[in-house]
Amino acid sequence: MKIGIVGGGAVGLLLAAYLGRHHEVTMYTRRLAQAKQLAEQGVALEKDGETTTVAVRARPFADAELDEPLVFVAVKQYDLDAIWARADAFRRVRTLVFVQNGMGHLDSLPLLVGQTILAGVVEHGAWKRDDRTVVHTGVGKLTLAVRFGSIGDARELQSDDPHFPIEWVDDWKRMLVDKLVVNAVINPLTALLQVNNGALLEVAPYREMMAQLFDEVRQALALADEQRAWERIVHICRKTADNYSSMYMDLAHGRRTEIDAILGYVLQQGEARGVALPLIRFLFCAIKGKEGREEDG
Amino acid sequence: MKIGIVGGGAVGLLLAAYLGRHHEVTMYTRRLAQAKQLAEQGVALEKDGETTTVAVRARPFADAELDEPLVFVAVKQYDLDAIWARADAFRRVRTLVFVQNGMGHLDSLPLLVGQTILAGVVEHGAWKRDDRTVVHTGVGKLTLAVRFGSIGDARELQSDDPHFPIEWVDDWKRMLVDKLVVNAVINPLTALLQVNNGALLEVAPYREMMAQLFDEVRQALALADEQRAWERIVHICRKTADNYSSMYMDLAHGRRTEIDAILGYVLQQGEARGVALPLIRFLFCAIKGKEGREEDG
Repeated sequence: MKIGIVGGGAVGLLLAAYLGRHHEVTMYTRRLAQAKQLAEQGVALEKDGETTTVAVRARPFADAELDEPLVFVAVKQYDLDAIWARADAFRRVRTLVFVQNGMGHLDSLPLLVGQTILAGVVEHGAWKRDDRTVVHTGVGKLTLAVRFGSIGDARELQSDDPHFPIEWVDDWKRMLVDKLVVNAVINPLTALLQVNNGALLEVAPYREMMAQLFDEVRQALALADEQRAWERIVHICRKTADNYSSMYMDLAHGRRTEIDAILGYVLQQGEARGVALPLIRFLFCAIKGKEGREEDG
Repeated sequence: MKIGIVGGGAVGLLLAAYLGRHHEVTMYTRRLAQAKQLAEQGVALEKDGETTTVAVRARPFADAELDEPLVFVAVKQYDLDAIWARADAFRRVRTLVFVQNGMGHLDSLPLLVGQTILAGVVEHGAWKRDDRTVVHTGVGKLTLAVRFGSIGDARELQSDDPHFPIEWVDDWKRMLVDKLVVNAVINPLTALLQVNNGALLEVAPYREMMAQLFDEVRQALALADEQRAWERIVHICRKTADNYSSMYMDLAHGRRTEIDAILGYVLQQGEARGVALPLIRFLFCAIKGKEGREEDG
């Protein structure tokens, strides 16, 4: 199958590196230089010290008309506006897969009648070494669910690669909420305290902060199964103990964070439910403030 | 007048450097080496690039019988237990001046009938360069008030030195609460966010955090004049914009902080009043966690 991937960040490169083995992948990047490099040299995947290369086609998104039946949109949520400014470019695409963190971006999509929308959750550890190289540090999975429409071509998205499993689930909402809850608790805390994920379990007062924050998140989102949600968070902290969260890394590198898509969304939901969320509001300000400082510096 | 000063930290040295000009000062230190150095070379005061030296007497606290009529206790609140373990050593002292942050330590003092207890608030910027040298970076004032007993000998504590003014006030409680409120808001926030005092005003989301935290502090302490208290905080942030709070510095140097005496006390007061204090509890954990980490490292 022909697959398009919009976005040349760590997630876009990771998808291209694995999907490109069995599919004909075209990457759509923001910068011409990156597209050129990818088209000429392919995507490089570093895993356990070995590097493999996969050939892809690539071009800048800015002037492309996408003609793949299935396209992954792998930009950050705050870059979606730039994508929608060219919504017409997706006219010929039958299935779009959104892999952003957060949930709000899937509520109102400027798309065509008949298009299938999938939601995806990427739970791999990966970072971008350079414009064509992604380092795959932690094997997780890609989870997919239908958000709007019927599955169609996307049925072909399967993988028996143990380094890149693909899992289909029925309940898109539960899938996204699960990820949101984990992100809403682990990301801002590790970014604020400047610690790795494991420290939230190991340092007793940090674990208490995590419980306090979780208590607000579960109220804001009216979580059905609190116990299960809490255990998921603890499980992920333990499994990724040595990792630094994406929000930690974003701040460390002076990049914009996904705080709006994550805590901003939770805050909105809580406000709509009339729940008081002092800690979430406080943390939201802390990360916003740090973002501003990094941009200054 | 003969004056004793227990504690050879920045505050103890600063008091000795200024009071030693007009009084006969004896310093009581924890370590013999510091006492020796002070006795032999005096206290050095660095101010605006110039260093002046004042001769003092000095000895280790551990085996001293204090015989000055007036003694400053200038150790951190968490070191008071070590002082009280030798409460007998103060038998001949008529007036004790406590200059700790917080308030709880003055509620139950193991002292003799007839002794006068003063509370003092030191609002100078100062840090200890070495065992005998204090750097005076910001001129503030020493404020004194009678806590128990009658003023007596302490009346002599006056200063017309513009670099070291002494102010007497009647309302000890208001004096201590004023300082506590400022410390409870500025110290933990700057320590957590790792910024100087001015950033709390300059960065809009940080200012919002400050307002959120203040809102809990004023409820916990049932502040009478909120407006005045808030303006004091803003004023001090502005006046000390380039300074880093003592709690920030303590964490940066892997030292224990005064979080128990400051937010711990506010938390206690709030609990006694039945006020919910999510942010204070959260910040308390954050600083406790960071303290533990520094000790590990």
